[in-house]
This record gives sequence, structure tokens and C-alpha cells, in this order.
Amino acid sequence: MKAEIIAVGTELLLGQIVNSNAQYLSRELAALGIDVYFQTVVGDNMNRLSEAIKLAAERADLLLFTGGLGPTQDDLTKDAVAAVLGRSLHIDRMAMDHVDRYFKDRGAPMTENNIRQALSIDGSTPLPNETGLAVGNAVAADGKFYVLLPGPPSEMKPMYENQAKPWIMQHVLTMEEPLYSKMLKFAGIGESGLETRLLDLIENQSDPTVAPYAKESEVTIRISTKAKTESEAMDKLDKLEAEIASRLPDHLYANEDVPIEKTIVDMMTEQGLTVSAAESCTGGLLMQSLTSIPGSAAVFLGGIVCYSNAMKEKLLNVPHDLLEGENAPGAVSAETAKVLAEQVRMIVDTDFGLSITGVAGPAYSERKPVGLVYIGISRRGGDTAVYELNLKGNRDTIRLRSAKTVLYHLWKQLKAEQSGK
Amino acid sequence: MKAEIIAVGTELLLGQIVNSNAQYLSRELAALGIDVYFQTVVGDNMNRLSEAIKLAAERADLLLFTGGLGPTQDDLTKDAVAAVLGRSLHIDRMAMDHVDRYFKDRGAPMTENNIRQALSIDGSTPLPNETGLAVGNAVAADGKFYVLLPGPPSEMKPMYENQAKPWIMQHVLTMEEPLYSKMLKFAGIGESGLETRLLDLIENQSDPTVAPYAKESEVTIRISTKAKTESEAMDKLDKLEAEIASRLPDHLYANEDVPIEKTIVDMMTEQGLTVSAAESCTGGLLMQSLTSIPGSAAVFLGGIVCYSNAMKEKLLNVPHDLLEGENAPGAVSAETAKVLAEQVRMIVDTDFGLSITGVAGPAYSERKPVGLVYIGISRRGGDTAVYELNLKGNRDTIRLRSAKTVLYHLWKQLKAEQSGK
Repeated sequence: MKAEIIAVGTELLLGQIVNSNAQYLSRELAALGIDVYFQTVVGDNMNRLSEAIKLAAERADLLLFTGGLGPTQDDLTKDAVAAVLGRSLHIDRMAMDHVDRYFKDRGAPMTENNIRQALSIDGSTPLPNETGLAVGNAVAADGKFYVLLPGPPSEMKPMYENQAKPWIMQHVLTMEEPLYSKMLKFAGIGESGLETRLLDLIENQSDPTVAPYAKESEVTIRISTKAKTESEAMDKLDKLEAEIASRLPDHLYANEDVPIEKTIVDMMTEQGLTVSAAESCTGGLLMQSLTSIPGSAAVFLGGIVCYSNAMKEKLLNVPHDLLEGENAPGAVSAETAKVLAEQVRMIVDTDFGLSITGVAGPAYSERKPVGLVYIGISRRGGDTAVYELNLKGNRDTIRLRSAKTVLYHLWKQLKAEQSGK
Repeated sequence: MKAEIIAVGTELLLGQIVNSNAQYLSRELAALGIDVYFQTVVGDNMNRLSEAIKLAAERADLLLFTGGLGPTQDDLTKDAVAAVLGRSLHIDRMAMDHVDRYFKDRGAPMTENNIRQALSIDGSTPLPNETGLAVGNAVAADGKFYVLLPGPPSEMKPMYENQAKPWIMQHVLTMEEPLYSKMLKFAGIGESGLETRLLDLIENQSDPTVAPYAKESEVTIRISTKAKTESEAMDKLDKLEAEIASRLPDHLYANEDVPIEKTIVDMMTEQGLTVSAAESCTGGLLMQSLTSIPGSAAVFLGGIVCYSNAMKEKLLNVPHDLLEGENAPGAVSAETAKVLAEQVRMIVDTDFGLSITGVAGPAYSERKPVGLVYIGISRRGGDTAVYELNLKGNRDTIRLRSAKTVLYHLWKQLKAEQSGK
């Protein structure tokens, strides 16, 4: 089974955006055991797009498209695939209702061009768009499979996961032994550190296969195996997972693809624990990542962004002498991180209080270097731990790593408490 | 002048890395006025790579390769290009010295396969590698131009900038006029709404060209023109920008590629204004986007995430009767949004106070539908504006759009005040 990914959009050819869709879909297809032989990017141009479709149909069995499903005259993907297949387009009733409802709900007039977002290729399966307007399409023709997805990742990913992937598994992958995978997620360790500890497993892999990859401040390993039944596959995967877990007990936080904040919210919900936060240089990033998890309201009660020194004093009772003066430790210090964590825990009245204060850059602050960050974790009826971080990278990276490091230490503490009970 | 970018590497097809090289080179070529018609990704496979080269040479004049210049048997780009051109490879003396010196300096033995990194196509210009070992190549053959660059961005970028770009400008671009562009950024309007208002400009475009595209909660237009001099180009671009601005005065917030929070921080810094925020359902997202801008500390002083009702009462003095009780408006209400904005403005003592309270989902809250969000903007010495939003999408989308909508209304108010003065 050979696949080709075709991303459609002049903005890609102008370099205005990076083709993250091709990476996402390549990884997903690899997980299904489907080989991607080519990725192609083509602009919003009928001739060149048609050329690319014909070529891909010669060299691949499964063609995945992203982009070009929108309302404008530049959005040509459905027109082009229909033309190459010698089919027509029709308005999909459900998709049209979805578009109509969207505009009615807003009391906004629907402009004519939005009808294009409800078009479907004759004989195709429409793929509903949960997070946007343009309907996707999946169609089998002449022994080849065509799957049309929208361009914005926020629409493409849910449509792939919930609509296209099941369609591919049912229509494309019927003959093959299915592939089963598990995602193992790690925190507090880099990709090369992880690889070093698992080198023999990675190098001698055959079945299950072991594929590590890194995102910003996260490392993931996907272990995969083909098997006739799910239970046969899971036996093999569970055994390997146990081996990996025994080597990295302080870093493996989940065996599914979730961020560490999800694991934390689940653990705290189960134990009836609550948390609050005081953020300086991260400006709300830590709290926004915790509250991005559905159900976090039971765990995260509130917090304070104290960007200025005045706010650290006023809202979080940090003593003035700690912040300012000849020999004061300053806002970026272990002392301030400790007070922030303890105060926010008491003010919001939670079991844990988290704090972050540091220099995110680009400019120095308090004559301290960019990347110097202090984080605190205060425990009701317990101690307050403070960590000094020396982070590399730009402003965004430093902020993200600061938040992720607090979450890592909070997870470690929750785990230690759990096993201590 | 048509170009194609060919990235070589199985790790791209497995989705292990994103093709940031294609974005970088596309942007660089656009800046030189060279049109990229296709980007291709192909694996470390001689047959498929040769196929891709032949195809690209048919449809483009300039072929830029990244990847496949390393020491291993998988690194095939030079072999493949040489084979397609019917040329041989030789060891480049300077490049070989560079490799030798590298290993000598480290006192490490040079393994045989490293000789491959010094290979050059006969008749090509070697492109020295300042930050790595593999030499690049540039070669003109049969009226086509081939430029071979390494895969790691840390090697590719300096080689492009210092070696390949001058070669292209000297050998490829001798006849053409450079391209000049401007990015126009819009808020508070969708892609289709924008296109409707600019349809005649988009449909009748020739010079300058008009290209709209949408990101999550943002719309951008790039206007571009070729001209002999920068001032000639800017005359044309400024005229078109003025025409577009006159049609969308309430939406065009910048003529460079910046998020609206950057424009807001700049406007407020200039006017010496300050802002604070109280966030419920967005949990810090609004504050984190404002504080992502360097220099935001002068403008954004602090704020409060009041996720629970208890915190709304305790930290932001929302009356209990407003939040709970038979006929209380509840936490998700215009009344609560108003109190939150006014209270946070007074507590943090700023010129503006922002608030967001709503149902981000996935579950209903207070028997109110997912997507119902109230936002408030309180002005020192002025009124408090409250807006009701009915947003579609998943939890992430609703949170993001809520934050972006507050920023949009804040920008509009800043602009109105500015022009009122």
C-alpha cells in the first residue's frame, strides 16, 4: 500500500506557512503501516493541480489531499479531483445545512461563495467538518483511493482522526493485517537522553517496532506491531512497554498520546486534589495549559498573573524588601518563587500552589541572564520545593519549557505521594 | 523563472521531522521574485529520486535540493543528479581538506564513508559548508540550474545565504526584476467576508497581485509587485494598501506580519496605557498571548484567572447573588463579565480591564450552550462594553476565538480613541 500526500496552497509555495499537515499525515499513515513515497506541494492552479493528481494516481494507491476546500475561487481541490475522475460535483445536503446554520446562528448573511464549502464529488463519502465549514470527501475510483481534507490543522486533524482514518481502515486496509500501536509519553528528558537509554531496543527492533520522536519539550515513543487480533498485539506491546517503563520510571507519564497536563488533571481528580498558580514571566501559559484539559475545573481553581513587581506585592504579598533594594534577591529569585507558590496556594486555598518567575528575554532583567527561571511547588501541610532552571532558546521556548518543567515536577510529586500511600 | 524544491529524506516521509527547509527556501526564492511551482519530498531511494529529478527538470528551470549529501549509503542526492545529467563525481580537494581537518582537530579517525561528503558533480561549483562537512554543489546544464544543499537547517541556511543565493543571483537571475511584497493583517472578519469586499481587486488583479489566506482567527493578504526599484514598488503597493484600508477600516490592523497583540502592545506603549485581565473559561490564554510580545511588561501589569465561582467572589468581588441562586444571571452572563472587567481594572489599577467568561465545552455549564461567551472591556473614566459571542468549534477553538475577539475589540477602541484625539 503506497500513499502520496498532496498539500494544495500557494501560501505553502510562498513559504508563508510550513507544511505541518504533511508531517502529521505521514506519521499517521506510518502508524497504519502505510508507506508514504512522495509528499507534493502544489499551488492554487487548476492545471498544475490536475497534473499532480494524475501523476500521484500513477505512482500511489492512496492519495491524501489537504487544503483547497474553502469558499474562494482559489479553492480548487474538489473541482480538480472531480475533473480528473470525470465526475461532477453536487451540493451535499447535510454540509449545506451545516453552513446555513453557522451563518444563521451568527445572524450573519451567508455570501454565495460559501456554497462551495458544501460541494461533494459524485459518489464520494462526505466527511463532516466538526470545527469548520468545508466538508471533506473520500472516494474510491479505478482501484485508487482519494481522501480530501481541509487545510487548517484545527479542521484537518479532527476530520482525519474521526472521519478519514476510519474510512481508510474500512475501505483501504481491508486485506492487510492490522497494525496496533501504543504511544508512550515522556517528560523531563530529552530525545537523545531517551535514545541512549533505549538504544539496544531501538537498534535491535523488529517486532514490535520502536519509533522515537520529539516535539517541543516532549518526547514520544510509538511502539507498533501487526497481529491478527488485538489481544495478541497488546500482549507484545504491553511486554515492551513494561521493559521501557522499568528503565525510565521517572519520565514515562502516559501510554497514550496526551500532554502531561492531562495526566495531572486525571491524577488530581481521582485523588480530590486542587491546584493554583502564580505566574510572572510565563504570563498565564501554565494556567492556560492546565485549563485546556476538559474537566480541569474540578482541579484548577484559579491563579494570578503578576507581571509587575507592584502586582507581586499587592496581589501575592511578596515583601517589598525581597523585590527591591541594594541586596534584595529580586523578582527572579528562589526566595520570590517560594513566596509566590505559598501565597497563591493560601489565597486560592488549594492543595498545591505553583509559581514561575524568570527572565524570558529578549532583554535581560535585574542584570540576570535570559533563561534564568525559578519555579516553586508548595504543598498544603508540606514543604515548598524550588528549582532553578537555566534554559536556552528564544522567548517562546523559554516560556514553554518553564511551564512544562513545573508540570513535570508536579507530576513527579503526585506520583511519589501516590506510591507512598 | 520557475523553481521546484526537492527535499530528500525518508525521515520526512515518516513524519519524524517537518519540512521547514521547504518553507525557508520558498520564502527566500519569493523574495528574489522566483516562483516556486512545486515542492516535492522523496525518500532515500535511487529510483524514486531519479524520477523526481527528471520530472522537476521538465517543469521547472531551477531545482533546489535539500538533504542526502551526508556520508551514509542512504545519501544519494549527488549520485542521482550526476546520473540524470550523465556526469561523474570527483573528490573536491578543498572539501576533502575540510573533512580531514575536522577529524584531525578532534583527534578522531576518519572513517572511509566520509569521503562521500567531499564528492562534487563534474563541472559544478562547489558550495563550502561553514557549519558542517558535506559540500554543496551548483551546476548549470541544458538550460536548467541545479543547486544541492545539505538537510540540517543549521548547515542549509548559511550555505544558501552565503553561497547558493549569490550563485543564483549571478547565474540564474541576470534578467529579472525583483519582487516586493507587503503583508496586510485583518481581525474581526473571516476569509470569505474579506474576499467578498475585495472581490473585484482579487479577480482583476494583475499588478500588484493580491493573495488572501487564513490562519486560525486571523486573515492575511499579501500584495506583491515586481519593479526596478524599491521606491517604484512601494508606490504601487502603498496605493493598493490605501484602497484596501478604505474598504476595511475596522479590520486592517497592520501592514506587516504581526499578531494583533503586537499591534496592541505597540499602540498602548506609545500612548502610555496599561491593561489587566480577568479570565474564566480561557484560563490565562488571553494574558499569555499579550505577554508573548517582547516589551509587553510596560503595558500588561497582571491579572487573575478565576476558574471557580468561589474565586470570582474572593479575588474579584463578584457578588454571590450574581453567581448563584434561582434567578441569578450566573457566572456566564453579561453582568458577570462587566463586574470582572471593572474589578480587575481597579484591583490591578490599569487603564483597561478585560474579561472573558463562557462555556468552552465540551460539557454544558449552568444549562448554557457550549460556545456562549461574554467578554468585557472596562475603561478607566469611561464605560464598560460587554459583548455576547456565540462561537462554534471545539474547546481549543472556542478559547482561542474568545481571546482573539477581546483583542479585536480592544484594538478597535484604542484606534477610536486615537482618532478621536
